[in-house]
Amino acid sequence: MKQIDDGQIKKDDQHYVLHAWAKQKNIHSKMIKKGEGVFFWDESGKKYYDMCSQLVYLNVGHNHPKLMEEFRHIGEIPLAAPGFATASKAELARKIIEVAPKNMAKVFFANGGADSNDHAVKIARMATGRYKIFSRYRSYHGATFGAGNLSGESRRFVVEPGIPGFIKFDTPYLYRESIDFESEEAATAFYLDRLNNQILYEGPDSIAAIFMEPIPGSNGVLVPPKGYLEGVRKLCDKYGILMICDEVMSGFGRTGKMFAVDHFDFEPDIMTFAKGVTCGYSPLGGVIVSEKVAQYFDDHVLMTGLTYSGHTVSAQIGCATLDIYKEEHLIDHAAAMGEVLAERLEKLYRFASVGDVRHIGLFAAVELVKDKATKEPLIAYGLDYGKDTVGLMSRFVGLLSENGFYTYSHESSVMIAPPLIITERQINEAMDIFENVLAQFEKNDLFADQTVISK
Amino acid sequence: MKQIDDGQIKKDDQHYVLHAWAKQKNIHSKMIKKGEGVFFWDESGKKYYDMCSQLVYLNVGHNHPKLMEEFRHIGEIPLAAPGFATASKAELARKIIEVAPKNMAKVFFANGGADSNDHAVKIARMATGRYKIFSRYRSYHGATFGAGNLSGESRRFVVEPGIPGFIKFDTPYLYRESIDFESEEAATAFYLDRLNNQILYEGPDSIAAIFMEPIPGSNGVLVPPKGYLEGVRKLCDKYGILMICDEVMSGFGRTGKMFAVDHFDFEPDIMTFAKGVTCGYSPLGGVIVSEKVAQYFDDHVLMTGLTYSGHTVSAQIGCATLDIYKEEHLIDHAAAMGEVLAERLEKLYRFASVGDVRHIGLFAAVELVKDKATKEPLIAYGLDYGKDTVGLMSRFVGLLSENGFYTYSHESSVMIAPPLIITERQINEAMDIFENVLAQFEKNDLFADQTVISK
Ligand SMILES: Cc1ncc(COP(=O)(O)O)c(C=O)c1O
Ligand SMILES: Cc1ncc(COP(=O)(O)O)c(C=O)c1O
Repeated sequence: MKQIDDGQIKKDDQHYVLHAWAKQKNIHSKMIKKGEGVFFWDESGKKYYDMCSQLVYLNVGHNHPKLMEEFRHIGEIPLAAPGFATASKAELARKIIEVAPKNMAKVFFANGGADSNDHAVKIARMATGRYKIFSRYRSYHGATFGAGNLSGESRRFVVEPGIPGFIKFDTPYLYRESIDFESEEAATAFYLDRLNNQILYEGPDSIAAIFMEPIPGSNGVLVPPKGYLEGVRKLCDKYGILMICDEVMSGFGRTGKMFAVDHFDFEPDIMTFAKGVTCGYSPLGGVIVSEKVAQYFDDHVLMTGLTYSGHTVSAQIGCATLDIYKEEHLIDHAAAMGEVLAERLEKLYRFASVGDVRHIGLFAAVELVKDKATKEPLIAYGLDYGKDTVGLMSRFVGLLSENGFYTYSHESSVMIAPPLIITERQINEAMDIFENVLAQFEKNDLFADQTVISK
Repeated sequence: MKQIDDGQIKKDDQHYVLHAWAKQKNIHSKMIKKGEGVFFWDESGKKYYDMCSQLVYLNVGHNHPKLMEEFRHIGEIPLAAPGFATASKAELARKIIEVAPKNMAKVFFANGGADSNDHAVKIARMATGRYKIFSRYRSYHGATFGAGNLSGESRRFVVEPGIPGFIKFDTPYLYRESIDFESEEAATAFYLDRLNNQILYEGPDSIAAIFMEPIPGSNGVLVPPKGYLEGVRKLCDKYGILMICDEVMSGFGRTGKMFAVDHFDFEPDIMTFAKGVTCGYSPLGGVIVSEKVAQYFDDHVLMTGLTYSGHTVSAQIGCATLDIYKEEHLIDHAAAMGEVLAERLEKLYRFASVGDVRHIGLFAAVELVKDKATKEPLIAYGLDYGKDTVGLMSRFVGLLSENGFYTYSHESSVMIAPPLIITERQINEAMDIFENVLAQFEKNDLFADQTVISK
């Protein structure tokens, strides 16, 4: 491509590009001029720790040499439509099944997280002949109509009136539950009992699937209480409902295991993935189905498809990415670094504004409050998207960024999910920045400020 | 990637990949071992004319040297999430607006055709505050829930029960209309009057958009009668409804102009694209909006988004692809070659089994019938997807393929849509094959055969 100067690029970006989740008149996008491992540099030369791996997908870090090298080999496998067998598609499907839970058998490829979830819903409906789909409040599954209807937060409202048969239930969120449970087990029993009732009320025979992020990500890394997911699995078995786990954000090492479900003692029927499978170097997502679900389609037409299902280039980048996880022992490394991060995170409770800290592997959220005793959130529920005002959270995240700690927030939670290649020293340096910014905010009483800034 | 032998690839493909629109037990996918321009070669060394550009996306042909070279430059523009301005995204958006109808102002990027349509529906609903969406029977818009609900054919049924507010109306299909119109204008008046009534019956103030392929592609290249699209535009203006044109298949030169709408005397409010923007070398799609629609989002949050919106690599490949259209004068060439193809197509009427031939540029369909007088279609409506049997059409397309003419069919129509780089001689060679196969079928009375083969 021709070299165009930064000023022109930014002007064109503002002028010609429609930007997600934003009012367009306020768009002043930064540029990434260079990326390397956990770091990137903007157009002013400023360096950032990428503490959210862009949108929690850059697990292998910026500018990975092996992936850059892989792009030099594009073309060696001829591009072909989904109807053809290709080396990259076949190999990637095999590699995914090799690292997936034991019951998993086949992969349907799509382009990203949202459309993968749409296809998963369709697959579950076909395989069961039922149409209702359960999913949870405080979840995000994407912005297509299927994924949007699955989502249990305000980003869903724009796809309403909703698709018939999409039903919501609660995600265990112990920090903000009105009941103070004796134990995690007690919480689990409570939530499962409610879910069991809701299944009965909706009619078990009409429910195709229960769809969930095993650990909801952008809604604040809500690690489930002990036994909860296993309990959902048992309910699914009892009623012949398929259990679908959205591993788009949590998959491929993010939690210190290959998939989030690997932390628990159950196997889903269907899993969806995207992000980490290529670490965003090429768009790719998909649906993994169990042997049992796969068998249904031996004799029944799979009524779904897309032009780029198993895209030759994306699959080739996916194969190289999966090799990196193995060669660099990234899953084990993420688990080890998760412990380093955990130690730093647990120390944050000493700050008056830190209400809750949740983490597993390199997947963490810090939830801020105005008042630790009342747990009053920094911003009221539902105010961070689609409303005219945005306040303290964006100021906090802005200040983090100014200090070289790049991440984003949702509701009152700040996401911390660096590339899995991060080192102990880098975690400590980044968390030092985080603590300094927190201290600065508290010292200047900024969290008490009620002013809201127009978006 | 490691070299794996073809047998193993095909085995892995069968074993690990879930294939679109098919029963899995019958999957025996061929491989493309080499592609070059309009040709590809399978694993037996057999050479094919790619007369459908894979899935009507490979407009610049197989293995285009400039695009292969572009992959060598991946990494020069650092990968970045949608929140950042990048050289490739900004440049591609500008390039698209430069070739789009004059009223078009901004581009929202997505991954493929289906999700682009989902986002377009959301954009129209937001911009109008209305929720009903009109789209047409005999249309295909993709397989996500939004695009699936837009689609007016049997591939929709699997996303039912449908999304509230999605309404269908008829595509003008003069060959199979019960009325024998005096003129195209009479047909146009008839269809517009019906549409006007339906708008009134549904309540104009509740209708956000009329969504249409200006020339439905996979449903058989249904070129509209004179004045029809302009008439729809007028109805939209009258009732404050947005007109959305799905140019996923028809865009980027396929019809002999940059976009299909360029053949007519109107401007849509929103257009969607995918396929030809990268010619399938990297997954990319998007939504183009008019200045007026864009302005709405200056002050209103655009409530949609996706991780790979404006993907750095895909946008870079898109920029290079758009350069090729220009450098190789592919749009003019497609128009010229369209005339060559047209001449061959019009001659097909001498065959007893050719009922209708429809074409514009290098976008054509040949509709086969059992009986020219009664117009009895080769296969009854709705039988080619999701049913247990498939008959004459797949045998016909199979025989074409055996003879080196690769394409696909839908209902009783055979798609003819070669790469835009095809030469006059290549068109004639390929059409000779087509005629020979037709003759062979007729001679052996194969079209009379009522046997259906299990899929
Ligand atoms: C759990 C989960 N599912 C699905 C998605 C949607 O993925 P995409 O943005 O690629 O459509 C996301 C995006 O962040 C996600 O976090
Ligand atoms: C007109 C039209 N729109 C949308 C689509 C869906 O595109 P994709 O398969 O990339 O989702 C297609 C696919 O063929 C199409 O022809």
